[in-house]
Amino acid sequence: MPNTAYADLEARFRRIALLGETASVLHWDTAAIMPSGAAGARAEQLAEMMAVIHGLKTAPEVGELLGEASADAGALDDWQRANLGEIERQWTKATAVPEDLVVALSRACSACETAWRTARPDADYGAVRPLLQEVLDRTREAGQAKAEATGLGLYDALLDDYEPGGRIAEIDKIFDQLARFLPAFLEEALAAQAARPAPVPPEGPFDVAAQKALGETFMSALGFDFNHGRLDVSLHPFCGGTPDDVRITTRYDEADFTSSLMGVLHETGHALYERGLPERWRRQPVGEALGMSVHESQSLLIEMQVCRSRPFIGWAAPVMRDAFAGEGPAWEEENLYRLHTRVRPDFIRVDADEVTYPAHVILRTRLEKALLAEDMSLDDLPAAWNDGMKELLGIVPPSDREGCLQDVHWYDGAWGYFPTYTLGAMTAAQLFAAAKAADPEIEPGIAAGDFQPLMAWLRAHVHGKGRLNSARDLLTEATGQPLDPKVFETHLRDRYLH
Amino acid sequence: MPNTAYADLEARFRRIALLGETASVLHWDTAAIMPSGAAGARAEQLAEMMAVIHGLKTAPEVGELLGEASADAGALDDWQRANLGEIERQWTKATAVPEDLVVALSRACSACETAWRTARPDADYGAVRPLLQEVLDRTREAGQAKAEATGLGLYDALLDDYEPGGRIAEIDKIFDQLARFLPAFLEEALAAQAARPAPVPPEGPFDVAAQKALGETFMSALGFDFNHGRLDVSLHPFCGGTPDDVRITTRYDEADFTSSLMGVLHETGHALYERGLPERWRRQPVGEALGMSVHESQSLLIEMQVCRSRPFIGWAAPVMRDAFAGEGPAWEEENLYRLHTRVRPDFIRVDADEVTYPAHVILRTRLEKALLAEDMSLDDLPAAWNDGMKELLGIVPPSDREGCLQDVHWYDGAWGYFPTYTLGAMTAAQLFAAAKAADPEIEPGIAAGDFQPLMAWLRAHVHGKGRLNSARDLLTEATGQPLDPKVFETHLRDRYLH
Repeated sequence: MPNTAYADLEARFRRIALLGETASVLHWDTAAIMPSGAAGARAEQLAEMMAVIHGLKTAPEVGELLGEASADAGALDDWQRANLGEIERQWTKATAVPEDLVVALSRACSACETAWRTARPDADYGAVRPLLQEVLDRTREAGQAKAEATGLGLYDALLDDYEPGGRIAEIDKIFDQLARFLPAFLEEALAAQAARPAPVPPEGPFDVAAQKALGETFMSALGFDFNHGRLDVSLHPFCGGTPDDVRITTRYDEADFTSSLMGVLHETGHALYERGLPERWRRQPVGEALGMSVHESQSLLIEMQVCRSRPFIGWAAPVMRDAFAGEGPAWEEENLYRLHTRVRPDFIRVDADEVTYPAHVILRTRLEKALLAEDMSLDDLPAAWNDGMKELLGIVPPSDREGCLQDVHWYDGAWGYFPTYTLGAMTAAQLFAAAKAADPEIEPGIAAGDFQPLMAWLRAHVHGKGRLNSARDLLTEATGQPLDPKVFETHLRDRYLH
Repeated sequence: MPNTAYADLEARFRRIALLGETASVLHWDTAAIMPSGAAGARAEQLAEMMAVIHGLKTAPEVGELLGEASADAGALDDWQRANLGEIERQWTKATAVPEDLVVALSRACSACETAWRTARPDADYGAVRPLLQEVLDRTREAGQAKAEATGLGLYDALLDDYEPGGRIAEIDKIFDQLARFLPAFLEEALAAQAARPAPVPPEGPFDVAAQKALGETFMSALGFDFNHGRLDVSLHPFCGGTPDDVRITTRYDEADFTSSLMGVLHETGHALYERGLPERWRRQPVGEALGMSVHESQSLLIEMQVCRSRPFIGWAAPVMRDAFAGEGPAWEEENLYRLHTRVRPDFIRVDADEVTYPAHVILRTRLEKALLAEDMSLDDLPAAWNDGMKELLGIVPPSDREGCLQDVHWYDGAWGYFPTYTLGAMTAAQLFAAAKAADPEIEPGIAAGDFQPLMAWLRAHVHGKGRLNSARDLLTEATGQPLDPKVFETHLRDRYLH
């Protein structure tokens, strides 16, 4: 006999997913093209969408259906069982938070994100601080409600939204190991770099239209399908939209094409993951991306592992040169490789090299833990940020624009998100090493601009798996072991010391 | 004692309006920028939004609240009473249509509109006909349900969605009067035109960026606020978005800047109406645009009454010339005026002059009445279209691309909409005549590129009124009489014979 309660849940969560897709398109629109005067109305539209989605998730029948469906779980296959588990997880967290708090949080995030857009260029933390307090207070309130419902700690309850099953105690251990390895390694890498000729940046200005065309060329080569996606401009680059309509954004700098180009390649990695999610499970929880560490592993696998590698630069150097009619030694392969693997402690996370990047993440993770635990007040954030930068990277931002205002995350309500970036970097190293070992065609393919072997492996081992397994199990199946920081360390040694 | 049932209805319809705004942004996105491969997913998203909105409108409590609120209507002011009436009207029609039909209709429209996008350039009516049949069948089904609930005929029940209170019997009378006037007048106008030198079209190509900049210049002059709106490109020009984020579209022809420019000015008229709706009643039914005849009156008042007038062309001619660095007699004011008021029977409605435009509308109204009444089958539509063009304008489209495939309306589910275009043209003439009579500053303002006096009058007498009164009452209050085709006839005589 079919499990009708399960079928009913699938139908309900399909509706929820469709409304989520709509909200996602609205979010993209807000960030990419909405005229500024519409911010207030948009905040209300998004809050209403959140209320409707929350209402559907927490309808009294859902709890009953979950009970019935679980009682007859033997009638379900693996995917269905995993889907049921995800539905229950989402339901548990949603029912923990009252609708008025969902709406208040959505409004607070919209208001704060809007204010951040001007506070950041103005380096005016004070202008956005009260709105950030409201976001933090509502986030903490929602997090505590989820913590009570799940038995998790406050930070874990928030982290779990981005990294299902993620636990900060484990992450702290991994980050501690990294924090022991990195400072000495950074010294070594800088010394090795100083022994080589310094890279010469190609001279601009680089026409924005030409930069866009170059980005599109690489996107297409990697397999991005413009029938199912777009490339646009936004203040903070991101990958949004839906699996059938993946929209990535970038920002252009006429003086430096590399920053935008690498950003585009990074977001393309996210986009290929979304687009490669299992079509059969579209609009079911089990068909969604597994979590942000795996998501970030896909963007960093493309940007850091592939597109800053020698084989890639060998293929890409003449393409870049032709895009800007470049001439001279700055456009030679060896110089471009050195440029794309240059290590330099700096202020901006999204522009950071992969050696210094973890320091940015460790700083943010420490700070958000302290803020959520009320061990620190938002008044102290700018100074604590600058102290942390001094301690971790030996530099102090000239203003909050390059300091605690640089990232949209906290201002937009993403608390418990930052650690996934560095988990993603390590996951990327581990997946790419396993992929290359499994298929000897992958690296020669990259050197020839053919990314199909790599994409086939990623689709089979990551993209097409959705949420069938936990991140730990996915990584163990794909690479033979759970996350091991040593693989990342080996990658760094290979690239920066040899 | 406050009318709490009424307050509850306001809160519910505010939610409905917010979801409607979201659906409106999705519709804009679909038409303007969505990648084509996302059409299927978008259709499902829109259908789900329609289902949610329908569910909120038809919730059992709404009927009860309407009863309570109406019983205590004495406690309400004029705007609140009008709002309550509109809520009841929307509720009556929504409850008549079951949710599965709402969803089926939304899906049918999305599928048909998508197919139309390629059928039109391919002139392949056969490719889209089965999908159009589905739209027509579901539209008729929904219309019959609304007809039963309201006591209206089928056509009126559909018309009422676009033109609240509109009745086809009255429209037929007005159109009959026009149909008696126009053929002879067209002969006269063409004869008068033949007696004057033929206008010389400025020679292109006209750079698309320059066309866009010129459109934006005129939009800004008219009062379009780019903090609350956008100008983009779509296959079929339209005005979408929301009152706080009004998005108009156009399409560019490098050989002819006039077509796009006049389209932009037309949509700007729509946009200024939306933007000028009463802020106090935002997201309540009474705060919406009154209906499509008044909406179209605002676009045609700007495009036809103002922007093709001598005072406007006098101001605009040098602006146009400078935009394209034009030289020679084609750019002289007198030539541009003759060009913008040229009468010429042609195939495409949106490019038609105001003398031949009503024939396009009369044809479509006749055909959709026959199709809805099942007096004609969709198989016979292309031939009936061509016969009608021959009868009304003496010309036969070379293919269905210039014939029954040219407009998106039927393919997108807008049945009972077409008559409002010509009602709008007549309303525009009547409003503009009254405005000029009321404020002698309006015409000199236009001649100097100052549209504030005109806009102030429109805001006071049209935009700011929302749905407080019926279209008939609004027109009577603003102009001293209900719609009178003679005012339109007088306008045509003044412009084309003298």
